[in-house]
Amino acid sequence: MSVEEIQKAKQAVEFNREQLEGILRGRFFYAPAFDLYGGVSGLYDYGPPGCAFQANVVDVWRKHFVLEESMLEVDCTMLTPYEVLKTSGHVDKFSDWMCKDPKTGEIFRADHIVEEVIEARLKGDKEARGIAAHPVEESADKKKRKKKVKEIKAIKLDDEIVKEYEVILAKIDGFSGAELGELMVKYDIGNPVTGDKLEPPKAFNLMFETAIGPSGQLKGYLRPETAQGQFLNFNKLLEFNNGKTPFASASIGKSFRNEISPRAGLLRVREFLMAEIEHFVDPLDKSHPKFHEVKDITLTFLPRGVQESGSTVPITETIEKAVATKMIDNETLGYFIGRIYLFLTKIGVDPKRLRFRQHMGNEMAHYATDCWDAELQTSYGWIECVGCADRSAFDLTVHSQKTKEKMVVRKKLETPIEVTKFEIDLTKKLFGPKFRKDAPKVESFLLNLSQEDLKTKAKELADSGKVTFTIEGIEGDVELDDKFIKIEEKTKVEHVREYVPNVIEPSFGIGRIIYAIFEHSFWNRPEDVARGVLSFPPLVAPSKVLLVPLSNNKELQPITKQVSDILRKSEIPFKVDDSGVSIGKRYSRNDELGTPFGVTIDFDSVTDGSVTLRERDSTKQVRGSVEAVIKAIKDVTYQGVAWDEATKDLTPFVSQEAK
Amino acid sequence: MSVEEIQKAKQAVEFNREQLEGILRGRFFYAPAFDLYGGVSGLYDYGPPGCAFQANVVDVWRKHFVLEESMLEVDCTMLTPYEVLKTSGHVDKFSDWMCKDPKTGEIFRADHIVEEVIEARLKGDKEARGIAAHPVEESADKKKRKKKVKEIKAIKLDDEIVKEYEVILAKIDGFSGAELGELMVKYDIGNPVTGDKLEPPKAFNLMFETAIGPSGQLKGYLRPETAQGQFLNFNKLLEFNNGKTPFASASIGKSFRNEISPRAGLLRVREFLMAEIEHFVDPLDKSHPKFHEVKDITLTFLPRGVQESGSTVPITETIEKAVATKMIDNETLGYFIGRIYLFLTKIGVDPKRLRFRQHMGNEMAHYATDCWDAELQTSYGWIECVGCADRSAFDLTVHSQKTKEKMVVRKKLETPIEVTKFEIDLTKKLFGPKFRKDAPKVESFLLNLSQEDLKTKAKELADSGKVTFTIEGIEGDVELDDKFIKIEEKTKVEHVREYVPNVIEPSFGIGRIIYAIFEHSFWNRPEDVARGVLSFPPLVAPSKVLLVPLSNNKELQPITKQVSDILRKSEIPFKVDDSGVSIGKRYSRNDELGTPFGVTIDFDSVTDGSVTLRERDSTKQVRGSVEAVIKAIKDVTYQGVAWDEATKDLTPFVSQEAK
Repeated sequence: MSVEEIQKAKQAVEFNREQLEGILRGRFFYAPAFDLYGGVSGLYDYGPPGCAFQANVVDVWRKHFVLEESMLEVDCTMLTPYEVLKTSGHVDKFSDWMCKDPKTGEIFRADHIVEEVIEARLKGDKEARGIAAHPVEESADKKKRKKKVKEIKAIKLDDEIVKEYEVILAKIDGFSGAELGELMVKYDIGNPVTGDKLEPPKAFNLMFETAIGPSGQLKGYLRPETAQGQFLNFNKLLEFNNGKTPFASASIGKSFRNEISPRAGLLRVREFLMAEIEHFVDPLDKSHPKFHEVKDITLTFLPRGVQESGSTVPITETIEKAVATKMIDNETLGYFIGRIYLFLTKIGVDPKRLRFRQHMGNEMAHYATDCWDAELQTSYGWIECVGCADRSAFDLTVHSQKTKEKMVVRKKLETPIEVTKFEIDLTKKLFGPKFRKDAPKVESFLLNLSQEDLKTKAKELADSGKVTFTIEGIEGDVELDDKFIKIEEKTKVEHVREYVPNVIEPSFGIGRIIYAIFEHSFWNRPEDVARGVLSFPPLVAPSKVLLVPLSNNKELQPITKQVSDILRKSEIPFKVDDSGVSIGKRYSRNDELGTPFGVTIDFDSVTDGSVTLRERDSTKQVRGSVEAVIKAIKDVTYQGVAWDEATKDLTPFVSQEAK
Repeated sequence: MSVEEIQKAKQAVEFNREQLEGILRGRFFYAPAFDLYGGVSGLYDYGPPGCAFQANVVDVWRKHFVLEESMLEVDCTMLTPYEVLKTSGHVDKFSDWMCKDPKTGEIFRADHIVEEVIEARLKGDKEARGIAAHPVEESADKKKRKKKVKEIKAIKLDDEIVKEYEVILAKIDGFSGAELGELMVKYDIGNPVTGDKLEPPKAFNLMFETAIGPSGQLKGYLRPETAQGQFLNFNKLLEFNNGKTPFASASIGKSFRNEISPRAGLLRVREFLMAEIEHFVDPLDKSHPKFHEVKDITLTFLPRGVQESGSTVPITETIEKAVATKMIDNETLGYFIGRIYLFLTKIGVDPKRLRFRQHMGNEMAHYATDCWDAELQTSYGWIECVGCADRSAFDLTVHSQKTKEKMVVRKKLETPIEVTKFEIDLTKKLFGPKFRKDAPKVESFLLNLSQEDLKTKAKELADSGKVTFTIEGIEGDVELDDKFIKIEEKTKVEHVREYVPNVIEPSFGIGRIIYAIFEHSFWNRPEDVARGVLSFPPLVAPSKVLLVPLSNNKELQPITKQVSDILRKSEIPFKVDDSGVSIGKRYSRNDELGTPFGVTIDFDSVTDGSVTLRERDSTKQVRGSVEAVIKAIKDVTYQGVAWDEATKDLTPFVSQEAK
């Protein structure tokens, strides 16, 4: 089979999700966690092939991003104290809206319930009008959930109402809890099965809470993202990097989100593997020295403007043009979008089913000023798999304000500049006697006043000879006269510019990417549709080689062991299948595991040391010495050499399957 | 420097923990997590070199164990529902004893407080008697904790009391909470600072608790070990392995223990990386096919008997002899002990500071029937870093009993055997009408009765024509007559033997191993004791190469970039240091990072393409082409070739440092 023929064969049979998911569970790529105990929704375990696939994806990620860019990888704790996530905004804002049915105790996600009920009514209306509801592509979230509205009733609606419903659906991601509550009252939306009224939407924080230490008094959470650990270590990382910017930190690890009612397999789970990069950059210079390496890549974009105009027709253009036209804000953001594309396609994402969608204003996380998602198309719709957010200086600023610890970059200026600003002088020896143990707190407060505050206070001090402050943790007002402090506007020559860096954050949901690759890699052999194949790129395939002795005959055992030893020594993951079943069956089992190569040992192998190498997708076979075959496997798997090129010195072989 | 000279140099300067820990924090191997917010005890972040070191250790672990033995690696969730850990015994038994001071609210670990107060009194006694307290080697836990007893008072004790105290200390790991409470009352042991009485010891469960889902009603914990996820997936794993045993599963991931008052850096933390193997084996056949590969290794053992006789003098012998004499119970346990030894020494553990200590009866975890710890000697004492426990069939049995799901291996018998046992027959059509929705529950209960129960009930049924049962979840007694069930003793020929496998569990605390390697690798250059060196094996060193252009001169930039590109393409982790400081200073900084090789680029490099390669420990230098130097680096790092052998074709070079 030629490359074109394989491509054609892969498209021949229509995708069947049930079959794929059957294979994934049957071959133990993954399974519901605690299955034996009835399972817990949103929790999944990875079995051997899933776990190996995940480890390979993580390995490629680390090489593609961390090693390639000399990023500073850190491993921070998942347990996080309350105070940190209060400051970062997650305690107050990291939540979804939930509604409880007071009768049944069931809990629903407010936006989902509104959306589903309205959709069901619109469908019912279409039926009543005799319009066949044509299968529209549904959004990811919709298809993922088990439908709560079981029955569509064919009831015709007023034209006016239909219009109102359509507007609501278009804006569904943008409503506040109160607005959702109003919609539910106005349109009489309740429990979709019983129709009973629900309680008004309440914010449900998505973080798992726990208590650290034996007293139970130190409240903590499981981190909802790895990012905070990286921000908190910013000063140490900057020092490690000899004070130079731009630089990036990176982290791979589990994060946790207590989803209200997770369904649909690996796409919405409560515990998941993330790989996150925090690239710290000068807000005044977001150019990137390696931008030229990605600028010519052509991508599919869905920018904010297109979506807000009500369209989903993407724009296809080069990254260079996208940055030049300011559709993508800057080179650094463009560079990472290009690198994300290269990574995803390297590990098996179909480039035709990948787009970059910009967030609309109302859907951005509380810390982001701009965000592009790499979305992968699956049978559940377009799924957000990688976010590439500009978090500006948000996180460093809030942590710095809270802890009074400076988190800045100091950059030597080429030409010194004159700066005029207010400065505060404390007569420190007076503070101890007056404030005793509170003295450090008062001093720190005063030294951290903003320019604006200093301006106001300077006037107050000049006018009345004294100033008053309210300081957190100190009772009553603090009054100081000009013997204690002086505030003056001074002009100085500065040789160093101090700034809080901006953060560009590419953030990868590894489990979602993996699931999308499962779908993108799956096809059926047209000659036998029951035979599913997972065409993973060899680089990330769980196992690279299936080693198959032709029969159980003892004569084949020594050479099988010998080839095993060589594979093991070459660190090529492989599996021996010496079960009695036919070669064809054994290969077919491994098609389902996505194993790219088969090495067959037969009786000729015993005499001349040659073996047969089979390629999974084309089922092409070639023959040569063990060393030559292993070299071909290594070249294709780790060096990205094409099959034909890598096997050009091996002898074509007529398939035993075909015989 | 020859190998012997290096060995001598490494011993020349006395180990200084403060200096090592200063370097580890200064170079950001690790740091207290949430430092900026005052830190949380027992939580640490790994910075770039620590994180890379950890990733390399995990990578070697995976190759040494998982790939070498074709283990089935899985990745299970950390969130674990209450029910699972209730069954496994962790909810009831995974706790330490804590005492609260009712006045100050301080919380102490009961065994630690008894031990410390008694030790302080014994020291005071020695002082009073004029005996200099000679520095005894303290146990790990003791040294690790900040001493709570600040002041030793020189008070002479009765001879009788001294003896009683010594006996208590010898048995300190074996007391129950009640016994600790009695000791505290009897010997008036209270808050070590104020002397005030403490509340009686209370069990404190070491698991972090949380609630899963929005209702808050599904109680869960963060797993205290990765093992349970592996046990729960046993049936799927067995099927994946085509029903064959023995086989092993493996898992690498974070676990959590809410220590009462963790101190002492990486050795006792609340969140830690574990790598665990569960090897499932036939209880009647614990031989191992690869035992011969490790049998000749000579190890240091501290078996139970020696310890119970009050001695700590180890036994040195081969694994073969240890198994033959039954000191180690069986070949499989012996095999893993040997493999653990090979792994630890490969990644930098000093074999002279490694011993295998068998647990005494009173210190075993609730699930273990036998356990050998690989202990590593550090300045904190001997630290348990790897446990190798025989969990027998404990876990599979309890989960199977709880869930009524069989977890067994079916093994075809060579010769069929006759088996006589009680069998129960249900007249199923009668159960539905009588028990309605409870019918499946009643049937499952009856089908899972033990042989013993069946025997009793058979008699009851024969005697009275009916039997009664109490079934969990069903109100009132369940009465059945012989129309519903028959219980008879039958003799049958069986072709298959069914058994619950035993589990041998090698369990690695990665953070503890890493810390021990830090100590084992650290030394000072005798010619300049301020220069600390971390002599990591190249295989696990965070970065392999420091690339050093001799000066900032622009002429050197193209070739520096060229060498960088080759290193990157060869996937050799490296760092460029083009800072202005002297070569000596740059190397010295990298000695602290444990970088094994330096590659220097000078002006000759520009003309003839040759570079200098420097070895960290010996500071030996050789010169050759970039390709030849990179080959030498790869051979030493990944192939384990000795330096002299790997560089024999390169030209010796006189050190620039020495000039």
